[in-house]
Amino acid sequence: MNVVVQHIERAEQRIIDGLAVCGVATVHEAQGRKGLLADYMRPIYSGASVAASAVTISAAPCDNWMVHVAIEQLQSGDILVLAPTSPSNSGYFGDLLATSAQARGCRGLIIDAGVRDIRDLTSMQFPVWSKAIFAQGTVKETLGSVNVPIICAGELINPGDIIVADDDGVCVVRREEAADVLDKAQRRMALEEEKRQRLAAGELGLDIYQMRERLKERGLKYV
Amino acid sequence: MNVVVQHIERAEQRIIDGLAVCGVATVHEAQGRKGLLADYMRPIYSGASVAASAVTISAAPCDNWMVHVAIEQLQSGDILVLAPTSPSNSGYFGDLLATSAQARGCRGLIIDAGVRDIRDLTSMQFPVWSKAIFAQGTVKETLGSVNVPIICAGELINPGDIIVADDDGVCVVRREEAADVLDKAQRRMALEEEKRQRLAAGELGLDIYQMRERLKERGLKYV
Amino acid sequence: MNVVVQHIERAEQRIIDGLAVCGVATVHEAQGRKGLLADYMRPIYSGASVAASAVTISAAPCDNWMVHVAIEQLQSGDILVLAPTSPSNSGYFGDLLATSAQARGCRGLIIDAGVRDIRDLTSMQFPVWSKAIFAQGTVKETLGSVNVPIICAGELINPGDIIVADDDGVCVVRREEAADVLDKAQRRMALEEEKRQRLAAGELGLDIYQMRERLKERGLKYV
Amino acid sequence: MNVVVQHIERAEQRIIDGLAVCGVATVHEAQGRKGLLADYMRPIYSGASVAASAVTISAAPCDNWMVHVAIEQLQSGDILVLAPTSPSNSGYFGDLLATSAQARGCRGLIIDAGVRDIRDLTSMQFPVWSKAIFAQGTVKETLGSVNVPIICAGELINPGDIIVADDDGVCVVRREEAADVLDKAQRRMALEEEKRQRLAAGELGLDIYQMRERLKERGLKYV
Amino acid sequence: MNVVVQHIERAEQRIIDGLAVCGVATVHEAQGRKGLLADYMRPIYSGASVAASAVTISAAPCDNWMVHVAIEQLQSGDILVLAPTSPSNSGYFGDLLATSAQARGCRGLIIDAGVRDIRDLTSMQFPVWSKAIFAQGTVKETLGSVNVPIICAGELINPGDIIVADDDGVCVVRREEAADVLDKAQRRMALEEEKRQRLAAGELGLDIYQMRERLKERGLKYV
Amino acid sequence: MNVVVQHIERAEQRIIDGLAVCGVATVHEAQGRKGLLADYMRPIYSGASVAASAVTISAAPCDNWMVHVAIEQLQSGDILVLAPTSPSNSGYFGDLLATSAQARGCRGLIIDAGVRDIRDLTSMQFPVWSKAIFAQGTVKETLGSVNVPIICAGELINPGDIIVADDDGVCVVRREEAADVLDKAQRRMALEEEKRQRLAAGELGLDIYQMRERLKERGLKYV
Repeated sequence: MNVVVQHIERAEQRIIDGLAVCGVATVHEAQGRKGLLADYMRPIYSGASVAASAVTISAAPCDNWMVHVAIEQLQSGDILVLAPTSPSNSGYFGDLLATSAQARGCRGLIIDAGVRDIRDLTSMQFPVWSKAIFAQGTVKETLGSVNVPIICAGELINPGDIIVADDDGVCVVRREEAADVLDKAQRRMALEEEKRQRLAAGELGLDIYQMRERLKERGLKYV
Repeated sequence: MNVVVQHIERAEQRIIDGLAVCGVATVHEAQGRKGLLADYMRPIYSGASVAASAVTISAAPCDNWMVHVAIEQLQSGDILVLAPTSPSNSGYFGDLLATSAQARGCRGLIIDAGVRDIRDLTSMQFPVWSKAIFAQGTVKETLGSVNVPIICAGELINPGDIIVADDDGVCVVRREEAADVLDKAQRRMALEEEKRQRLAAGELGLDIYQMRERLKERGLKYV
Repeated sequence: MNVVVQHIERAEQRIIDGLAVCGVATVHEAQGRKGLLADYMRPIYSGASVAASAVTISAAPCDNWMVHVAIEQLQSGDILVLAPTSPSNSGYFGDLLATSAQARGCRGLIIDAGVRDIRDLTSMQFPVWSKAIFAQGTVKETLGSVNVPIICAGELINPGDIIVADDDGVCVVRREEAADVLDKAQRRMALEEEKRQRLAAGELGLDIYQMRERLKERGLKYV
Repeated sequence: MNVVVQHIERAEQRIIDGLAVCGVATVHEAQGRKGLLADYMRPIYSGASVAASAVTISAAPCDNWMVHVAIEQLQSGDILVLAPTSPSNSGYFGDLLATSAQARGCRGLIIDAGVRDIRDLTSMQFPVWSKAIFAQGTVKETLGSVNVPIICAGELINPGDIIVADDDGVCVVRREEAADVLDKAQRRMALEEEKRQRLAAGELGLDIYQMRERLKERGLKYV
Repeated sequence: MNVVVQHIERAEQRIIDGLAVCGVATVHEAQGRKGLLADYMRPIYSGASVAASAVTISAAPCDNWMVHVAIEQLQSGDILVLAPTSPSNSGYFGDLLATSAQARGCRGLIIDAGVRDIRDLTSMQFPVWSKAIFAQGTVKETLGSVNVPIICAGELINPGDIIVADDDGVCVVRREEAADVLDKAQRRMALEEEKRQRLAAGELGLDIYQMRERLKERGLKYV
Repeated sequence: MNVVVQHIERAEQRIIDGLAVCGVATVHEAQGRKGLLADYMRPIYSGASVAASAVTISAAPCDNWMVHVAIEQLQSGDILVLAPTSPSNSGYFGDLLATSAQARGCRGLIIDAGVRDIRDLTSMQFPVWSKAIFAQGTVKETLGSVNVPIICAGELINPGDIIVADDDGVCVVRREEAADVLDKAQRRMALEEEKRQRLAAGELGLDIYQMRERLKERGLKYV
């Protein structure tokens, strides 16, 4: 019942790094407006922007034992993703665990619960997106699992899925769709750049996207 | 039913700029403790402080079509104010729309819903006060209206009303009361400055405001 | 019924300052995982870190009269702690009160309600941990009490208890337990420093804390 | 500033009673999907269903003084609608006020705050839709206004507007639109009745509303 | 650290039963508007009304072990009051525990967490006021304490304090103040009864409480 | 992308009906404390208790078009389960849709959004577990999917999974685990019945479950 899956598939690093450049909003759009975790998942400091392969943790409420287990499974470029089996805001993770994770090349943490030692994590530049900031200590009594599918902040995360996270929040990309999503995201960025220049020059979206006709048809009245 | 009002009255720029200097708390007090939008309306970055004429948007939930329509109605010194017709946290607004709005002199956005591209908006110094930060994409299917009275975060906003917003939140001032409110706010600031100096020097509010007598009458006991 | 207790016991300054160095998470753990105020108590700006003796205020909802009374009771090194007698998000406290409190050596404010003038408080470096940021004005109509036990954000605070607050939130330490808690917190910090170095060098918590055996006994399967 | 408007226009009783029969959902649809108060406004007991003319109360937070003032303004068939000027969950209203209001023919209370004496109000069959049930007492210190426009649970309510409320929540109808809305609501009900019978007989909405073609055009695939 | 206090003082049964008759709102007012637990504490079914001596439980989050310990400490006429040491919505309590508690004369449960088996508890007429209804199972791993002071839903509860609970929520009365509170509550009820009759006969609160003069002095304008 | 899966596997009716008898709390425990939907999912009326095969709906926010599509896929004994692709409290479902679903043998609705026509649904005895009760109308503009895996209130639901729902909330059982879960749930019920009788007779859980020794070992002190 409680398992640690030791071998998981990961996407190519080139793809992961490409998604990091695109950012959450673009990736979300590129894959058909899916994959966003709930909006209560906020970064503990501004400006962090990462993409990484998910090492998932299913943990008992208020119990961080499995984090230690998960850290051993980390490869450089991974990110920890933790969901409690029932709601908790306890502080599962702090500077010691971050030190250990960072020593193994971990790029951050996504946690549908609490985190603590915010000041240390910020100065270590170890980014965390969490539901809460709370110092409440946790126990080490109940087993969970590592690298199984979990539901985190309303989204299914499989081990090895790619997590993209920045100031806009957190988005998951299925590993097997990642190359395709990157391709679409990059094309979207190119298109947006052209539009940005036209908009900055004062052209209107109404004209660029040819909306006037359809607005009229639908019955919009200018008075 | 769905209209775009093209000509709205605006307050004098001199008055608007004066209110910006006073800030939200002072303006709120000066106009008799009214006009504050709900406290969940938070700025996406610290330190922004604006006053501007409201160009209002009534939009369908999860539908940002009307933002494009509203941008055409912007004059330099205006601010967009959007309220969905039923609750939504979707990301109606991002860097492209901000680029377009900024090109027309728009001073920011007040939105009782979500916003995205936080990093870009921050580096553009395009301030937004919102209910949520969320990358969720929106559609362009349902008409709304521009420059009609709306209820945004619990307050009625008429087109052309003055919005004052800073780190304390958002306050609306009726256009026709703006000159009077500015006058009262400026007098309040002058009075406060004098009190600030006395308090900084160690005088007590109990003495400056002559509270001791009334406290005693009401029955406060020192033990 | 409504009293101002003028003489309260305070812990030694040496102990208070020692707790400030330890920070919220360590102090919370050192005293047996108790004393944390609710996680909705957030600092108005990042990076503040204080410990101080509580001067407590029990105030009517939306009524800040007692803050003026409490300021007279402040000694250098104290912190104000306010709880309304029924829930309120009104802005009880702003830059004038902060000026007055700071003039008397006050180190900050803990308030289970709202605060305003965020920009001024930030530039004054007067830290506040609050439930809300809201400019809503308050009245001065109803008595409360100063330096009586209060329940603030879910925790009992006695006057003279030590408040520790930083980016992780707020923790209360009973005055009579403070010396013992400091001792335990300092020992914990020493132990953590050693572990931090081992973890940073790549050792695993699984090995340092000898968890492998117990995980196996409980039935964790590696697959 | 603080006023009691003694003479307000009311809709014809025939129209009000007609709207009561239609209910919240139908009236909301009939007037173009507007007018709903926030979904946190819940009835204190099930099964109540009313329509009535609004006598509005703008009250200070935690202060129910104006309720007494408003009761004098009630005519038979009215409903009280109270909004605090800043958020409050206090219990502004209980069995004594209900007794007084009921004696004057009042049909209930809509309150964006708290209510108490639930058991008594239930046995009196005095319906209330509120944000909270809370026994917290209020004071009588600060003036408000009666029969001025207010914002209650996110909607503008003018004195004399018609309130429709049932187990689905609360909806406001502008007095001047009431006759037209009733007409549309009644036609909607007639149409729905016919559809109900066809649906009950096993016909599908897909066929009744001829949706199959449009679903196909949009690209829906059956697999 | 983890204790079970076996002997606690209880108020006289006569006083407890008297408070039950008065109900939450009256008791809250009679003791000076204090003692209410947060408004999120709701009964699992309508119509229950109890007063009883508190047997308190401080429990780890998601751990109901101490409930078994507390049941042994129950005397006929007691009520269980449980607060987790950090927030939890888990279902600590269901029909088996209720059967056991009811067998010992327990009058109900106040729990700042979750409860389950709602249907059974309702048919047993075992009333519960809780923060949540949630079937989530709990563990039996971590000690807590029984009959120590706890903070439950924002209020301090000492073992032996009297809990009054009905459809309006939950109120605590200090054991040592109970006789005095009962006396005041009964006098309040007598006064209210007389007023109820006058109000039912159509007299106005404005006249009964002689408010007209003071309203005028404060500046209320009738227009 | 938007599909309707027409053929799904369902569990044997005998197993489904067996799970209905066990109820949510027992089923949740029997399958290892998993499968509960979030505690905000509440029944619109008390006393309903169902088990049924899930016909799932992934719908755009505020768009109920797919409900019509899903109803055609219903078999007698199914239940509709709807999750919007981004948060919504709109009223996707009312009495007409219920009439249509009930005509096809549908046992109810689980919806992570709003529902309306509560009175009618109650008199039809068509049970709904929802996040909100809200009359807000929806549109029919954007495609979704039917009978694909969805995340509803924090849990993954596959088409054909068994939904168990009663006054305690909602639990999902994987179709392929259902026979085994039923077996465990029935054994649990038998065991509980025996314990219920002993507890009702006054025996203590401390003795029945032999907890005294372990409590002592862990250090619980009786004082």
